[in-house]
Amino acid sequence: MKLLEDRIHSEGQVLGEDILKVDSFLNHMIDTDLMMSMGEDFYNHFKDKPITKIVTLEVSGIAVAFGAAQHFKVPVVFAKKIESLTLGDNVYSSEVVSYTKNKRYTIKVDKTFLTEDDHVLIIDDFLAKGEALKGLMDVCTQSGATIEGVGIAIEKVFQGGGKMYRDQGLDIYSQAMIKGFEDGRVIFVEQ
Amino acid sequence: MKLLEDRIHSEGQVLGEDILKVDSFLNHMIDTDLMMSMGEDFYNHFKDKPITKIVTLEVSGIAVAFGAAQHFKVPVVFAKKIESLTLGDNVYSSEVVSYTKNKRYTIKVDKTFLTEDDHVLIIDDFLAKGEALKGLMDVCTQSGATIEGVGIAIEKVFQGGGKMYRDQGLDIYSQAMIKGFEDGRVIFVEQ
Repeated sequence: MKLLEDRIHSEGQVLGEDILKVDSFLNHMIDTDLMMSMGEDFYNHFKDKPITKIVTLEVSGIAVAFGAAQHFKVPVVFAKKIESLTLGDNVYSSEVVSYTKNKRYTIKVDKTFLTEDDHVLIIDDFLAKGEALKGLMDVCTQSGATIEGVGIAIEKVFQGGGKMYRDQGLDIYSQAMIKGFEDGRVIFVEQ
Repeated sequence: MKLLEDRIHSEGQVLGEDILKVDSFLNHMIDTDLMMSMGEDFYNHFKDKPITKIVTLEVSGIAVAFGAAQHFKVPVVFAKKIESLTLGDNVYSSEVVSYTKNKRYTIKVDKTFLTEDDHVLIIDDFLAKGEALKGLMDVCTQSGATIEGVGIAIEKVFQGGGKMYRDQGLDIYSQAMIKGFEDGRVIFVEQ
């Protein structure tokens, strides 16, 4: 998606080997018009699927999912990774390893909000090694919901998660696919 | 705002003395159309103010702020309370006490995203004792930005935060004002 790639080129900052900082429009300040355009783009890709829920992970998936939800006209369910006062034990849960943060955390979804009748579009801001995606797929599978596809804002292709899950037959659509970083510049896969 | 009050009546769950669970449309599953309507309502209240940024707190403030941002046509900046890989030391920060969770946390905003030229509308999902609001006001004040007003989805009036800050002259607009809970029912202030 050219709009997002252009924004990454102009505002993204490469940190170290494998981190892209996009705090000026996605991860700290949010350009909601961009999120709406990205949501429309996800809709154009997945509109033939009978999506009933968009599932994402707090925190930064929420704005991306919001933009998509406005076009699909379905609710967003965000999996929780932070302690919640109101979330009880009636949950689907999964363990997620964060390589960049070097820790593990548990993601949870209240069973009330995902059922076997749901057809889910999973949305997230980044796809790297696929650990968060694995957790999101796990909670969806536990609920019996059908995973119709995965929409990602920024895929770091060189970290392999996307290929692994596409090889398993999952329909993953990434709006910006990063081949690698060179001298602090972002190199996109030619689409 | 009747739309929100009706939703709280039909789906909100009262837990214990002072907790209202609205996980089915705001804090876990998100009804983005409701957020857009709430955003329009905030806009109608604050549209004469020269708002340049909407400032909120992760996680649950984000969806409420998104709906407002779509009407004000300004960016959302969400203060971070969770460890961030990409946030450096160039931040405004403030300590927040959470009475319900019985802990303290630090909220941070990158100095790049709030300046003395900004006119801020602070948005949050809940207002109780006003601790999170105090932290948000503190980071805005540190930046030199002008705080034009505060938009709250659900104010628990009986916890006193709203009165305290209104008495100091702050323009706080809350869409649903809860007087108290009786037998598990939510009693709203008559507006």
